[in-house]
Amino acid sequence: MTTISVIGAGAIGGYYGSKLAAAGHDVHFLFRTDAAYVAAHGLTVHSVDGDYRIRDVATHSTIDSMPASDVVLVAVKSDANDAVAPSVAALVKPGGVILLIQNGLGGEPVFAAAAPQAQVIGGLAFINSERTGRNEVTHSGNGGLTIAAYLDDYRPAGLTPGMQVVATAYETTTVPVTSQPDLMWARWSKSLWNIPYNSLSVVLRANTAEMMNSPSGEALVRTIMLEVLAAAAADGREIGNDQMELMLAVTRDMDPYDTSMKVDFDRGRHIEVEAVVGEPLRRGLRLGVPMPTIEAIYRELCFINDRILIS
Amino acid sequence: MTTISVIGAGAIGGYYGSKLAAAGHDVHFLFRTDAAYVAAHGLTVHSVDGDYRIRDVATHSTIDSMPASDVVLVAVKSDANDAVAPSVAALVKPGGVILLIQNGLGGEPVFAAAAPQAQVIGGLAFINSERTGRNEVTHSGNGGLTIAAYLDDYRPAGLTPGMQVVATAYETTTVPVTSQPDLMWARWSKSLWNIPYNSLSVVLRANTAEMMNSPSGEALVRTIMLEVLAAAAADGREIGNDQMELMLAVTRDMDPYDTSMKVDFDRGRHIEVEAVVGEPLRRGLRLGVPMPTIEAIYRELCFINDRILIS
Repeated sequence: MTTISVIGAGAIGGYYGSKLAAAGHDVHFLFRTDAAYVAAHGLTVHSVDGDYRIRDVATHSTIDSMPASDVVLVAVKSDANDAVAPSVAALVKPGGVILLIQNGLGGEPVFAAAAPQAQVIGGLAFINSERTGRNEVTHSGNGGLTIAAYLDDYRPAGLTPGMQVVATAYETTTVPVTSQPDLMWARWSKSLWNIPYNSLSVVLRANTAEMMNSPSGEALVRTIMLEVLAAAAADGREIGNDQMELMLAVTRDMDPYDTSMKVDFDRGRHIEVEAVVGEPLRRGLRLGVPMPTIEAIYRELCFINDRILIS
Repeated sequence: MTTISVIGAGAIGGYYGSKLAAAGHDVHFLFRTDAAYVAAHGLTVHSVDGDYRIRDVATHSTIDSMPASDVVLVAVKSDANDAVAPSVAALVKPGGVILLIQNGLGGEPVFAAAAPQAQVIGGLAFINSERTGRNEVTHSGNGGLTIAAYLDDYRPAGLTPGMQVVATAYETTTVPVTSQPDLMWARWSKSLWNIPYNSLSVVLRANTAEMMNSPSGEALVRTIMLEVLAAAAADGREIGNDQMELMLAVTRDMDPYDTSMKVDFDRGRHIEVEAVVGEPLRRGLRLGVPMPTIEAIYRELCFINDRILIS
């Protein structure tokens, strides 16, 4: 039987981990201070697709007590990667899988370096969810998971045995999993949405509808998207303007939505500037692509983040 | 005797007008709803150089009642230019002077077109002042005035008789007046400070010290300044990097300071985006200079301003 550990059981890890637990897999959750509470009260998911509760959750307050795992699902914030990587490396079985479900760029190399005996798979969550209590996640929309294996410097890895392990585990759940042969293509594609909307939502203190209902807001989104497309193309990943127009149209039609960065900002939490904006920016600049709009907004976000950290 | 009218008796017009009144000039102030109050109570200036009060202020509640004037000192916000220009044109004597003390670009052509019989002089206020009551201005620092005559499309006008009228009027005051032969050079030089610090103070919700104490903040200031220098150079006005370094050093050494745009923003008032940022940006773009950082921040300010106006 596949043993699965979830490190970072918040909005993302709590949801994607609980789906595996609900399907009967052997899933262990790291909950740190809330371990005893969740063990006693179970883990509740309020979901647009129907609420459910996991009873008898295998909770752990430290990674040390978790069993050697075939799959370690890591869903911590990107700025915690360096801190958790050694423990994750010690937890995963030789030949096992580290599934990193995270926004932005730059996380996979950290885990690949720490755990050369494991296969690192990047996971991209297409979901609206939030941790709304000590043992509670609220899932308000979508829920798909795209996976793609990591190779050095994000070279296309094709479809790998590790990806098959993850896809098979989710087969008995309601989570639709999409396997992609090129992690970098998937990350650039998601960045096409994430960079403009996450960044501007904080700088402009705006939800998606406020951005799209303003000609100035939409012009900023478009300018940033064009810079992302140019960087992706220079990185050998053609995404195409039709994809950009589709994202704009879908976002225009969405209910007003606060991005994850905006939610963090509103809660006074550190925002994921480096993974979501800084890493793609530096990659684009290294490839010789001018990205002046993203550069300006990156600096604004750094300024804002520094103030969050010191206040 | 020189007859002087002040249109827009706020922080700027109240200060520079009261200095002429204090020196015994025949100065008329438009105060609209506060005309009777100021006539009864006088006009008080709390100043770092010593407080003073003008008694028996010649106040007017409408421009129509003001006397034909040798000098009309206009210090309204830039977005009021179109509205007041016809009345100002009717007020100024043939051959008289319209002295426009205002931030940014684009005001002088409005008054020159409305009053072809007058000489339009641009005024640049180097002052920290605020209107702090119905009949009260608080002056907390500096106080110089730079003047330069306007010619079509900001061609250098040299030193003109109209400038001499203004300089002579201020000779008996404590206001140091600097006469410049090229208004556009003066406006670009002031924009070198105004564009970065005003814009970023609103976008980042920061005072000058907060911007300069942050590497991200200072990097943004520098990037914007370099774009201003490039536009000025393309416009035939070499300003030089030493001037930029001087401004950075002076600002770093200043007490924490809220820009005029920040003060307006904090009060929930419309901010002067077009005059301070939009006009110089469009002028630079017409000259073929890439200004992507200013363009991004201009759009952010437009977004912010639209929200102020509708809320």
